[in-house]
Amino acid sequence: MVNSFFKNNGPYKFSEILNFLNLKTDQSNKDSNVIDIKDLHNAKPDEITFFHSKKYNIAANNTKASFCITTEKLKNELPKGCTPIIVNNVLVSTSTITAKFYPESIYDEFDTTVEDINKTEFNNKVRNGKNVLIGQNVSIGSNCLIGHNSIIEKNVSIGDNCIIGSNTIIRNCIIKNNVRILDNCVIGKHGFGFFPTRNKNLRYPHMGIVIIEDDCEIGCGSTVDRGSMSNTIIGKNTYLDNQIHIAHNVVIGENSIIAGQVGIAGSSIIGKNVRIGGQAGISGHLKIGDNVEIAGGSGVIKDIPDNSKVMGYPAKNIRNFLKENR
Amino acid sequence: MVNSFFKNNGPYKFSEILNFLNLKTDQSNKDSNVIDIKDLHNAKPDEITFFHSKKYNIAANNTKASFCITTEKLKNELPKGCTPIIVNNVLVSTSTITAKFYPESIYDEFDTTVEDINKTEFNNKVRNGKNVLIGQNVSIGSNCLIGHNSIIEKNVSIGDNCIIGSNTIIRNCIIKNNVRILDNCVIGKHGFGFFPTRNKNLRYPHMGIVIIEDDCEIGCGSTVDRGSMSNTIIGKNTYLDNQIHIAHNVVIGENSIIAGQVGIAGSSIIGKNVRIGGQAGISGHLKIGDNVEIAGGSGVIKDIPDNSKVMGYPAKNIRNFLKENR
Amino acid sequence: MVNSFFKNNGPYKFSEILNFLNLKTDQSNKDSNVIDIKDLHNAKPDEITFFHSKKYNIAANNTKASFCITTEKLKNELPKGCTPIIVNNVLVSTSTITAKFYPESIYDEFDTTVEDINKTEFNNKVRNGKNVLIGQNVSIGSNCLIGHNSIIEKNVSIGDNCIIGSNTIIRNCIIKNNVRILDNCVIGKHGFGFFPTRNKNLRYPHMGIVIIEDDCEIGCGSTVDRGSMSNTIIGKNTYLDNQIHIAHNVVIGENSIIAGQVGIAGSSIIGKNVRIGGQAGISGHLKIGDNVEIAGGSGVIKDIPDNSKVMGYPAKNIRNFLKENR
Repeated sequence: MVNSFFKNNGPYKFSEILNFLNLKTDQSNKDSNVIDIKDLHNAKPDEITFFHSKKYNIAANNTKASFCITTEKLKNELPKGCTPIIVNNVLVSTSTITAKFYPESIYDEFDTTVEDINKTEFNNKVRNGKNVLIGQNVSIGSNCLIGHNSIIEKNVSIGDNCIIGSNTIIRNCIIKNNVRILDNCVIGKHGFGFFPTRNKNLRYPHMGIVIIEDDCEIGCGSTVDRGSMSNTIIGKNTYLDNQIHIAHNVVIGENSIIAGQVGIAGSSIIGKNVRIGGQAGISGHLKIGDNVEIAGGSGVIKDIPDNSKVMGYPAKNIRNFLKENR
Repeated sequence: MVNSFFKNNGPYKFSEILNFLNLKTDQSNKDSNVIDIKDLHNAKPDEITFFHSKKYNIAANNTKASFCITTEKLKNELPKGCTPIIVNNVLVSTSTITAKFYPESIYDEFDTTVEDINKTEFNNKVRNGKNVLIGQNVSIGSNCLIGHNSIIEKNVSIGDNCIIGSNTIIRNCIIKNNVRILDNCVIGKHGFGFFPTRNKNLRYPHMGIVIIEDDCEIGCGSTVDRGSMSNTIIGKNTYLDNQIHIAHNVVIGENSIIAGQVGIAGSSIIGKNVRIGGQAGISGHLKIGDNVEIAGGSGVIKDIPDNSKVMGYPAKNIRNFLKENR
Repeated sequence: MVNSFFKNNGPYKFSEILNFLNLKTDQSNKDSNVIDIKDLHNAKPDEITFFHSKKYNIAANNTKASFCITTEKLKNELPKGCTPIIVNNVLVSTSTITAKFYPESIYDEFDTTVEDINKTEFNNKVRNGKNVLIGQNVSIGSNCLIGHNSIIEKNVSIGDNCIIGSNTIIRNCIIKNNVRILDNCVIGKHGFGFFPTRNKNLRYPHMGIVIIEDDCEIGCGSTVDRGSMSNTIIGKNTYLDNQIHIAHNVVIGENSIIAGQVGIAGSSIIGKNVRIGGQAGISGHLKIGDNVEIAGGSGVIKDIPDNSKVMGYPAKNIRNFLKENR
């Protein structure tokens, strides 16, 4: 993954990795260094990955990772150079190991490093309202405005000509140029991702960030969660209205328009030039093509090909929907 | 009701009660003390209750209250020891009397007692952000964090190991241990409850509180309203995503998972191990059983039995819904 | 339009107007003053208007404007005294000219004029929380409360007996008497109105304001956007629950009740005594009659006559909907 702001606490010895998972350490390569954790596509030699579903067989066949958390059934899909680590629940074990590499990415404690902007290097550089707080590892370009009571926590990069509203909180986020984020937003928090277990759910790390490309607008009261293993991305010149929720790992293409109170669930990929009407909802892990129009109030539960117009719940071809619902 | 933080301005003489309702005071027990107002189940001797619908006949037959606001038609359901008070509109009269007992529970004026946390006993006990305000009658356990600009108004009890985000407002609320309430939430405000009347709606008191059990998480931008006569309760280890609205008197069981932008209307009871997908809505006064799964975008308008999976608007068996909507 | 708080940068010579649109200035009246821009109905002599659809033929026939931005096809509908200005895209050209008259109405930069309320004339007049900020051109009546961290930006008039919650932002708004606006609201921001263009959408000015009549309540986390050419209006004694979004130019009648998470898209007109259930959505440019009941979760995509009860998506007669969806 690119651009992670989170500190990698590794490397760990392979024997330590096994130990974190309460596994025996009789393997010959137990002293090898494991330097990072990534998905099957992005992992490199000396890194660890995970493989939990045959959906990802091809990626598994081609991974360059030296280690892979997986199951007895799946392990034979891995290339010879990749040592399988056999566990009962791949995702839970992956979460355990990720938390060792990136402990700060599990919880979102408020940033204790923030200072009043007037005590920072941005004092005369940024036009700011009252009570603006700025954390560490923040950069802000030229000609930016930040409204009253807003908090730019650590790990935020803001480009030129950006306008941040009042009462807005931003963390773990790259904001390009000419972006407007209006009032009362929360950008870059941990996604709603965890393993449900009775009595105490197990949260998994969110090492991804939020990337907001040039010329975007994010309306009041919106929330954009950062990604878990990948990033949440809002494409260039895409506009979001008020009270929108964008979950972790969502990617939205350029020149899209999303009306008020829309929600997009985790890991869905939205094309460019897409228009989504108010209160529409898009389920997780879907692919919405380019130039798609989704009518307001629709509930999208499957992939939508390019150039389609859909409406309804579940969303279908808009002409058919309107014909059936006269 | 248990745990009310609101001051009881009673007792009142029975003659005063009648006077508040513009009723004649020719009854023999006019000098009796009326010490509190409760619902039919919970009212005890020397307390007043109300009875407005034959749905509640059994509770009325068994009430221990000494006084009951009711109608001419319903009064014969009350036991002998309970003096009926006959009115035209039971709920409006109940509201009038409740307001006499609990005047502070009608409006949510901001808490004028708050102080900067650094001037309070919590100064070195809590890890806090900038501009945190704390009201009177607040307790906070060990190892808690409170983010920037958050306001803990009066009548809040917070357990151990809790994380409160930034820009969040909490009042009239008991928060147990290991709870996380993220940014921009409003917890414990008066519910959306009033008697509609032309020109000037009549708000009724909300003497209930919000109780958040151990290990819960409440996402950014969520609102959880306090109860009117009973409490709003979020069960142990239940997780709420962003932008969720939980109305007054709602009770949610343990180990439930509620995705973004869900709304639950007043007085609905949700079981344990329930999963509710994003943007689903649940009407008021419903009972959703244990282990129920409600698909995202559904609109639930009737009770759902245990172990059901539902989808659609109105929500029905998920297989039937998907078969009918191919 | 009435009550605009935005400064009119005009008048402009007609030749300047043409120049802003890159049009030739060979017309005889090129030195005439153009003093304001308004819609067809409201424009007066020496003012400019716009006419982009034959839907508005009658208004065009009767306009009193001296100048009108329109197309070759439509120009003959204008009266003789009105000089047509022929353009390719009426709305884009109108936006260009409106921006010249009202440059401050395009973007919502935070108000740099605000001061801590304790440094203003309202210090002893208003009961206020901590960190309350007040902008220029603000008036506040008697017996008002403003909660912690709230920001009353410039161009706000608040009547008597109003309660403003905490963390709320208000600008460009007239609030009458006995109004309650709860926590975390944003009232009076620019609407979600722009002309989509690849690479850089073109925002149009919002010179309208928000008017909230007597006795209203606006719930927590709600957003009410100001109008573009007309005002957004909430009628007397209308109550909005939490997390509601009211878009630009919406008008809601008196005595209406709108439950949580409802969204009303731009320019829709809602009657009086209307009840809208939770999460319902109303598309833009619709007319909802008086005494209409819209069930929770409904999606309204066409006009609804007076005294109707509707449900469903698309919303239809509630009896028919329930019969078809048993």
